[in-house]
This record gives sequence, C-alpha cells and structure tokens, in this order.
Amino acid sequence: MKVLVANLGSTSFKYRLFDITEAGETLLAKGGYERVENFGEVIEDCVRSLEEDAHLAPMGADLDAVGFKCVVGGEVSGCLEADQTVLDALEKFREVAPAHNPAYANGIKQFAKVMPNVPRVALFETAFYQWTPEPTRHYAVPKNWRDAGIRRYGFHGASHKFIAERSAQLIGREDIVEKVQHLYQQGNTDITEKPLRVISCHLGGSSSVTGIHNGVAIGSSMGFSPQGGLPQNNRVGDLDTMAIPFMMKTQGLSLEECEHQLTKEGGLLGLSGAGNDIRDVKDAASKGNQDARLALEIQIREIRRWVGSFFFEMGGADIIAFTGGIGEYNPDVRAGVCRGLEELGIAVDGRLNGALMGTEGFISANGARTRIAVIPANEEVVIAREVFRFMQSRNAGKSGVNREKAEVNT
Amino acid sequence: MKVLVANLGSTSFKYRLFDITEAGETLLAKGGYERVENFGEVIEDCVRSLEEDAHLAPMGADLDAVGFKCVVGGEVSGCLEADQTVLDALEKFREVAPAHNPAYANGIKQFAKVMPNVPRVALFETAFYQWTPEPTRHYAVPKNWRDAGIRRYGFHGASHKFIAERSAQLIGREDIVEKVQHLYQQGNTDITEKPLRVISCHLGGSSSVTGIHNGVAIGSSMGFSPQGGLPQNNRVGDLDTMAIPFMMKTQGLSLEECEHQLTKEGGLLGLSGAGNDIRDVKDAASKGNQDARLALEIQIREIRRWVGSFFFEMGGADIIAFTGGIGEYNPDVRAGVCRGLEELGIAVDGRLNGALMGTEGFISANGARTRIAVIPANEEVVIAREVFRFMQSRNAGKSGVNREKAEVNT
Repeated sequence: MKVLVANLGSTSFKYRLFDITEAGETLLAKGGYERVENFGEVIEDCVRSLEEDAHLAPMGADLDAVGFKCVVGGEVSGCLEADQTVLDALEKFREVAPAHNPAYANGIKQFAKVMPNVPRVALFETAFYQWTPEPTRHYAVPKNWRDAGIRRYGFHGASHKFIAERSAQLIGREDIVEKVQHLYQQGNTDITEKPLRVISCHLGGSSSVTGIHNGVAIGSSMGFSPQGGLPQNNRVGDLDTMAIPFMMKTQGLSLEECEHQLTKEGGLLGLSGAGNDIRDVKDAASKGNQDARLALEIQIREIRRWVGSFFFEMGGADIIAFTGGIGEYNPDVRAGVCRGLEELGIAVDGRLNGALMGTEGFISANGARTRIAVIPANEEVVIAREVFRFMQSRNAGKSGVNREKAEVNT
Repeated sequence: MKVLVANLGSTSFKYRLFDITEAGETLLAKGGYERVENFGEVIEDCVRSLEEDAHLAPMGADLDAVGFKCVVGGEVSGCLEADQTVLDALEKFREVAPAHNPAYANGIKQFAKVMPNVPRVALFETAFYQWTPEPTRHYAVPKNWRDAGIRRYGFHGASHKFIAERSAQLIGREDIVEKVQHLYQQGNTDITEKPLRVISCHLGGSSSVTGIHNGVAIGSSMGFSPQGGLPQNNRVGDLDTMAIPFMMKTQGLSLEECEHQLTKEGGLLGLSGAGNDIRDVKDAASKGNQDARLALEIQIREIRRWVGSFFFEMGGADIIAFTGGIGEYNPDVRAGVCRGLEELGIAVDGRLNGALMGTEGFISANGARTRIAVIPANEEVVIAREVFRFMQSRNAGKSGVNREKAEVNT
C-alpha cells in the first residue's frame, strides 16, 4: 500500500511517500518546501516530482491514501476520512492551534483538488485520548465553557500511542501490542492479563507526558491546547488562569500581546533568555548562566510533577519511557526525572543511561521495580502505519460479510 | 498575652479575642458583622463591646496585638508588622485577591486609627512557602511576567503549617514540631533525623494540597492566585491558560465576564449545577444527578493529581493528612484519594475512616507504609498562635543580648 504523509505548517509543506505492508514500510521518496505562499502550486509540484522520481502513476492513481496529522477538532477525533466534518472541526478549533489547523484544512482541500480520487485520512493528535475516563476530561468550568469545547483533549497522540505499542513489545506483552495496533479500529478492548501501566514522556521542541493503562491513555499533561502542561521550547505550559487577566490589568498588555508572549517568548526561551533549543540552554548553563540552569531544573521539576501524578493515579508504573529529541539525547534529563525515587522502585543505571543516545533500550537499575526505557520514534512512519491500518479496515469493511465469515472460521 | 484576630471580607468583619500563653489559649470573646458599609464604625463598635463584655482596657491598652490573615503581597510575605510596606504590597496584588486584599488593607488602616498603640501583625497565607525550592516557584513565562510578580506563591499557609506541626506531634517527631513552631522566627533550620515527608490536604470551600518536607512547604496546588489548583466551591482551579482567550474570541465574552464566570460560577457549582456546598452536591448525586456525581469524582481526581505529584517529588510520603470541612467530614473523599494505592504502601482502614468525623486520628490500614491522618484545625487559633510567637520574638528582640546570653546558658 502506498501512503503519502503530508506535514503542513503555516508556510511549509513536507512529505514522505511510503510503501507499507504488514511486514514493514519502505520510504520511497521525501521532500519539502519552505516559505510557501500558494499551497496548491507546491502540492502540484510535489505530485509531479513524485511521478518523476518515485514513479507514481499520474493523478496519484496508484496512491492508496494521503495522511494528515491534524491537531485538534474538539469531539471530532480519531483516525478517519478527512471529509467536510473534519474540515468544519478544524475551522471551529482554529484558535486552539492557529499555526496548524488552518494549514491542515487548506492542505486537505488542495489535495482534494489535485488528486480527487485518492482517499484523504486525518489522524488527530487527540485521537489516543478518546477513552480517557470522564472525570479526567473536564476542567471545573461553567457549563457554557464545556459546551464551547473547553475540556482536556491531550496531544502528541501519535507518538504516545507508538510508545504504548513499542514498550509493550519490548517486555513481551503481545496482548497489549495487538490491542494498541488496532485501537482506532476495534476500540478499548479488554485485557485479561495483569494490567500494564506505562508513563510516556515525549520530550522535544514540544513536550508532554501521558499515562497509559493497558495500552490506552488515561490523561496527558497537555489539556485543552498544545500550550498547556510542560514548559515547551518557547511556549509557557501550565500557568495560573488568572495570570493573563492580571497582566492585562496591571501591565496594560492586550490579549494578543499576552498570547504572543506566552506562545512565542515563554518556555525554555523565556526562562533562560538563552534560546529555545535545549542544546543552547545547556550550553549557556555550562558557561555559568544561572537563568539557563534554572530553566533546565524547572523543566525537570515539571516533568516530575506530571509523571508523578500518573504514577500515583495508576498506583505505580511498570514502565517509564522517554522519546523525542530531548528524551532520546539527554541522559541528564532522564536521570533528573528519576532521581531520589529508590523507595518507589525507580532507579536509573548511570552507565546504561549515559550510553544511550538516540537508540532504543532500557536504562533502569538492576532490580528496580519500574523499568525505564528510551524509545526513539519516527513520527512520519507512525502516521503512515495508522493510515495503513485505517485503509485496511476500510477496505475490509467494504466486504464486511466476508470478514465476519473469516472471523468465524478462525 | 491578649491577641485579637480580625477576619475581614468585602462586606464582613469577624473577630476573636484570645488570651494566650505557652501552655495554650483561651477564647475570651468573639463576634462579627455582616453587610458592613463603614468598617471604621464597626471596628469602633467591636472595641466598645470588647471593653464591656471582655473587660478590655480602653483604647485596647492591655491588648498585645491584632492579627490579620492577609492573602497575598507578592514577595512581601511571612508573619510581620502590618506597616506601610504591607499595605503597599496588598494594594499592588489586589487583583490577585480582589475580595480580600482591599478588605485587609482597609481593616489594618482602621485599627491603626482606632487603637494606634496596639501592634498590628500580618500573617500572609503565602508565608509558609518562603522556603520552596526555586525551580518550583516559577512558571515558564517571559521575564516581564516574572518581574510583574507572576510566580507560584501557594496559599492556605496558616492551615498547612499547622498540619506540618500537628502531624509531626502525632508521630512523636518533636524536632520537627519545634522547628515548625519557630519557623517564621528562626527560618528553615536543619533536621538531622530521618526526613519527614507530609502531604497536607486542606479541603473545604477553598481547597489546596501542599507538600511538606521536614516541616517546610515544597510547593502547593495553588500557585499565583487562589483560583488555581483544585476545583473550589465555585472557583475553577487549574485550567489551560488559552481557555480565556478562546472564550473571548469564539464566544464574545469580555475579560470581566470570563473572570466572573471562572471565579463565581465554576468549581463544584459549575460542574454539578447543584450548588457550591459539597453537602448539596452529594445530596444531588445520591438522587441520581449525573453531573453532581461527576463533579465529586473530578474533585477526587484532581486531589489525587496533586497529592501524587508531591508523593513522587518527595520519593514517597510518611503522612497524608486531611483537614478542612471536606477533609474532616467526608470519609468518601478520603477513601477516594487513597484508593488503589496498596502497591505504594497507602491504604485506608474503612472502619476507622468511616468513624472519624470532625475529630482527630489515624485512618490508615494496619501495616500501610504511609500513615493517613485526619486533623481538624481552628484557623483563628492558628493565627493567634503565630501572632503570639511573633510578639514573643519581637519583645525578646528588644533585649537581644539577654536572649543570646540565655541561649548560651542553657
């Protein structure tokens, strides 16, 4: 099955073309455009170059699907056909993800024009949180706020779901692996074995922590918007809700100025003044910049705060997993998150931890109750696989009777 | 020592007069006024009635101090003389506690007029958090926000500090008791014995959870304002910082409407629609109101989220304590907070828990690693004691040399 993954920003378009089977995926082509003004043009250009370089048939005739990693559409979520319902939802929640929702809505429309016969599949970043327990979904806001869509959604769903699958695979829990792989098609099916409790730390330019019980998310550090939870590269993370009104009233900031400062000038950048990339912040800290040192320590404290809340909610954890650029390449962050927790059965092996940089493996100390894993992820591959599963299920759905018969026969 | 505790609201004034010694306190008189328009008049009336009923000398000549439980003054905190610095700080942060800061500023000024020679002592609700580790104090906001005073302060300091003292007393840790009693005078002195880790749940009309390490707060669920953290009776608690901008832009709410709705129509009231008192919400839930049931469950989940974060940060807990109206009288809330935690050494004894209503005692199951306590508190007494300690220290300070000698001699 040929799947094109489209990665859209306000002024950028990147793509990867995969050939996928049950056995695995092959990258056939990749490319991208920056400073895009006319998305229709660059998408046409992309299709032309795929025809030339990757031998794609004209009009994408042998392309099985285009996948879009959409951010947020309120109650519209999951891995589903990118139809008008999806477009409407992206529009309704554009203020929650102003850099992404309009870009994806536009991209979906442009692909519909250029290759009208190729299915378009939306994978929402909120999809993994469809089965969170109801009490964890709500803020204590008045009803009109809930009706307007103010609730905890959770993000980075593609990444955390992959951690749910891969972490289970690493410890031989094939029942969980099977469940997670088909979660978006078969739902939150029962697990009869011992419960598996995973805490997934996706740490990068954008970061979040997700608690995972039996392969399904029970909550995330990010809530209503991708601005909440952990401090991000230049975004604020959790903040008292009265801070914006206070700054507007006492400092004369406009709402737009508050939003701009919190989403562009906060996070590691705002705390350290040394940049929005952790490598720059660490560099500054190592040269004695106290604000940069504090920024790094605040990031660790905030990760601990969220990991701790999921650890407690699940009554313990079997695996704590790190992924993303920071999670994969910063042994000091991993050690900081796990420090002083021997009594809780959590301890890092310093040698293993120091040696693991961008590769997969366990870093927990011998005999520690909770296993600590580093699991690199390739987001485009993860999206392509979800689209592949969706298309398989859809194609099977067209001959639903046969499928049912087949199930009876096995 | 005679100490008057003044409890001021926007339109109310309540007072209690205590006679305090090292051995304990006696309540000499109490009273209050509602729908107050002229605070000067009612304070004069209060002093007159204390002269008549409690035999107070004219002009408060035998009154040692008036204590004021102030809410927030930014970096101005602690238990200290309510002078112009305190008044300026209350004014600067009036937007953080609009119902309380102006009322206390006014009350302090009125007492200065009516009884100019009686010392006025301010005990800030933020005082207990003066020694929190620096990384826990900050949000990841830009520097201009930090400079304006946006940081985590923490509240309910009088109550949580009392829990720090009393919980240590209950398990015979006299070193911690001694330290906490003199914390505001002697600071965060070292503890040489095994560390003591307490998580204090102050649950009432206004609620917060505080982590306490060796008698000193390491953080609180409430941060910048008393609006954050747990859902309150009618206040929102933690909320994604982008929710207000979203409601302003998509629903056309003004900033004032957002503030009003979040601080008057949120919390248990907003979730349940059944009232802002947990008794009413429980009553509605027992009659099948699903929103009310959800509200109760959300409150428990949010308490667990914060208790869990402190449990993890401290690498475990020796005591989890419940206080406040909800903490003292709701075994179901206590059981909910502690459910499913046997693996972590936390378990409630159902019989003990059910039997403890408004009285002091332990409710943990036999053999559980963490002890679970219920500790009723009398906030006015707690304030009076802090004022007593402040005055003792101040009086001793006047003959500082003698005091130093006395210490050498013991």
